[in-house]
Amino acid sequence: MDLNTALNKLSQTEKKMYAYDHAMNAIYLDSVTVAPRDTVEGRGIAMGILSEEHYKAFVNDETEEILNTLKENEAALSATDKAKLRILSRSLEKTKKIPMDEYVQYQILTNESESVWHTAKEINDYSLFVPYIDKIVEANIRFVKYRQPDCHPYDTLLSDYERGITRDTLDNFFNTIKKPVMELVDKIKSVHQPDSSFLNKHYPVESQRILSDYIMQVLGLDRAHCTIGETEHPFELSFNKYDVRINTHYNENDFSSSLFSVIHEGGHAIYESNIGDSLQYTCLAGGVSMGIHESQSRFFENIIGRSYEFISYVYPYILKLFPDQLNGVLAYDFYLAVNKAQPSLIRTEADELTYPLHVLIRYELERQLIDGSITSKELPFEWNRLYKEYLGIDVPDYRQGVLQDVHWAGGMIGYFPSYALGSAYGAQMLYVMQKEFDLSKDIAKGDLERIKGWLCKNIHCHGLMLDPYDLFKNACGEFDPKYYINYLTEKYTSLYNI
Amino acid sequence: MDLNTALNKLSQTEKKMYAYDHAMNAIYLDSVTVAPRDTVEGRGIAMGILSEEHYKAFVNDETEEILNTLKENEAALSATDKAKLRILSRSLEKTKKIPMDEYVQYQILTNESESVWHTAKEINDYSLFVPYIDKIVEANIRFVKYRQPDCHPYDTLLSDYERGITRDTLDNFFNTIKKPVMELVDKIKSVHQPDSSFLNKHYPVESQRILSDYIMQVLGLDRAHCTIGETEHPFELSFNKYDVRINTHYNENDFSSSLFSVIHEGGHAIYESNIGDSLQYTCLAGGVSMGIHESQSRFFENIIGRSYEFISYVYPYILKLFPDQLNGVLAYDFYLAVNKAQPSLIRTEADELTYPLHVLIRYELERQLIDGSITSKELPFEWNRLYKEYLGIDVPDYRQGVLQDVHWAGGMIGYFPSYALGSAYGAQMLYVMQKEFDLSKDIAKGDLERIKGWLCKNIHCHGLMLDPYDLFKNACGEFDPKYYINYLTEKYTSLYNI
Repeated sequence: MDLNTALNKLSQTEKKMYAYDHAMNAIYLDSVTVAPRDTVEGRGIAMGILSEEHYKAFVNDETEEILNTLKENEAALSATDKAKLRILSRSLEKTKKIPMDEYVQYQILTNESESVWHTAKEINDYSLFVPYIDKIVEANIRFVKYRQPDCHPYDTLLSDYERGITRDTLDNFFNTIKKPVMELVDKIKSVHQPDSSFLNKHYPVESQRILSDYIMQVLGLDRAHCTIGETEHPFELSFNKYDVRINTHYNENDFSSSLFSVIHEGGHAIYESNIGDSLQYTCLAGGVSMGIHESQSRFFENIIGRSYEFISYVYPYILKLFPDQLNGVLAYDFYLAVNKAQPSLIRTEADELTYPLHVLIRYELERQLIDGSITSKELPFEWNRLYKEYLGIDVPDYRQGVLQDVHWAGGMIGYFPSYALGSAYGAQMLYVMQKEFDLSKDIAKGDLERIKGWLCKNIHCHGLMLDPYDLFKNACGEFDPKYYINYLTEKYTSLYNI
Repeated sequence: MDLNTALNKLSQTEKKMYAYDHAMNAIYLDSVTVAPRDTVEGRGIAMGILSEEHYKAFVNDETEEILNTLKENEAALSATDKAKLRILSRSLEKTKKIPMDEYVQYQILTNESESVWHTAKEINDYSLFVPYIDKIVEANIRFVKYRQPDCHPYDTLLSDYERGITRDTLDNFFNTIKKPVMELVDKIKSVHQPDSSFLNKHYPVESQRILSDYIMQVLGLDRAHCTIGETEHPFELSFNKYDVRINTHYNENDFSSSLFSVIHEGGHAIYESNIGDSLQYTCLAGGVSMGIHESQSRFFENIIGRSYEFISYVYPYILKLFPDQLNGVLAYDFYLAVNKAQPSLIRTEADELTYPLHVLIRYELERQLIDGSITSKELPFEWNRLYKEYLGIDVPDYRQGVLQDVHWAGGMIGYFPSYALGSAYGAQMLYVMQKEFDLSKDIAKGDLERIKGWLCKNIHCHGLMLDPYDLFKNACGEFDPKYYINYLTEKYTSLYNI
């Protein structure tokens, strides 16, 4: 095969992968938004077959030949084609070691499992979920052993979400932040908490929807290319950079929940919308890793969204929408309330300070699930024990405990740590950015263009051109959790006067 | 290939077709409900490739071999397998005559065209749509000539939606009903019209949604398997019998619009939900033809939904939802209002009596588009001329004229006549059913079980086991438009005392 033929065929393969991804995304999106409840069977059949076709379209002799041809001609390749060769060789190596029928069975399993998890959570019955988490853990271990028999299985899983990250990196990371965070949480316990009761008044969904529209506008998300919908567990999904979807969940008695989930998912959406045009429909389109993705969502949610400048800018609009609920509440009161730090049960609604402890708990537990030192039946007990130890709170039921997140049900083991890494990446980005310009002034004017420009140029536009480690280092220097701790300490010391 | 192998492979092929259909349905559903506006490109790429894969999964040597094996063993086949052989041989014969690249291009074209039609309708600019309708007409003619070079192209198209129907059948049908319908419309013009102004008061969408939920319940649609969503142009779509979707459009100043569109789409949904379990995921699942499908939707919408018995049953609930808007309006007034017959512009909102004239106009026009006796640029003029001639009204703009329906944009030429045939089928079903039991009594009690049972047994459960002609004949005897005319004459003579 000559190089031109290889490049043409590569482009066809990439488009085909795009088509299957698009189809499976559409089916998934439907399943978690508008699909009727009892429709798992037909969707499972479709998803199983589409996964199989997706697999076959990639793992085959032709792909090997294409990649071999590219490798032989590596010196002559453009930077983009070099990146494709790197990404696809790795991905092929990884995928072809998993037998196709096992791969397909796993897709069917996770599809079923997510649906069972929904029910289990709804009726607060963990036992329904046990056989599924068992099968998912077993399959994950089996798969990583096919792939990297000499690695610790959990290291391999971690690397799937954040290439290069190992248990050592994370132990070091969590060891650095655990003590200072717990100390801050402790100090705050002994001082007066700001009033946040007004956030729990009745906020009609209809008006919250109007607020979401406004927030989308402030974030500069173009509605012709990005819509907002509703689901149980907020998420962002992009078909491509020009077709991005945010889904939130409205809680009529918890006003800040959807407000910050829209900003959070908006951060993901901004990332996806800014991927370089030339990467469209290729294997390099999309966010580079879960950690970098979360750095963007949490940067927008916390560093921008929960700053006093941002709150001051959007508060007049909020006040106009909810004059009764917020009667007498000043922007500064609102700012204090949405930054209130205190141990709580639900990760997605945790404050910025206690958040990494939620992640730490999941990190410790999933690591032990994988190395077999705890069983799925011990999981709720261990979950509750760690919530008591790190956050000092009692978990009252499965729904607000071990069944709260969809990740394990969806087969995502090794994903959680990227949430905490993301926050830490974001804090370091803030540090670097601040040396270039004064973010506060821009945010106070509701002008996010310069910030988005920096992120686009340094992070977003590259797609998967660089590995996350290199991408981050080019933008911010060597990763160091001290920036994160400095950021948290400064913010919470000042907020609480401690 | 032995028979067992052939049957196993057949089942795999059917499942694969199901998976591609499921995927394309999900993408389509998304595109007309929640997708952002400017997202045609990515969806077009995905749909093009999925269509191509769908085509390849069916049109190949293996399918030919499977069908040949079945044919050789026809005597030994079950009734279901015989039906599959009949359906698939026909379909393969039809599809393989169209070159794959032309087939794929056509899928891409109709995807684009629907999107252009949306915009054209929105901004009332027919000229945007001209190049698309031209290409669609051209492609349709080309395709049917590949398939049946000796047939009139429009006959072939008609047969795609209602097998066995030709221009002769339709000429005879419309000649039978045109004069009596126009005479009834004329007579009504000279008598006093009932007041229906209360239908155009302000009916908030939120309350209309609650009404839809109630109507779904009255129709006996199980929400665990059938949801209701919102779109511009109401439709029903089923992934399979256990995953059915109704989409309606709420107009705050036209109360009856969504009410009857939910009942209409509900009729389609009931049909799909009742397909025999053994036909799931096979080529025999789904409604047998457009005409039979429309017979079900229009049976529920008009014969049941607009009957005095049904109105009397649901009216107390409606009154409770809208006490101000319907203050002083009796069930009988409401019944008269929703059955008001008078010439109007929009087919989907036309009354039961003038409806077939809307269809007749489309029949005459699309037939002429196909045989070349009018051009796409003449279409608006001819449209307006026929609306004046048959319905006596002036068409003020494209939006309410030639651009009102999506069908031609979606490539569906030859589809419209099935709407009128459907109404006529339904009237004949009513005649036959009435000889068996008194429908009115059941409807007055809101009990649709016996009616649905009759339809399920005689129509729904069979899926595509029988051709529509045979299915109908087994259920109701030879098709005769006189039952339709008798039904309309009786209903409107009594309603208007003429």
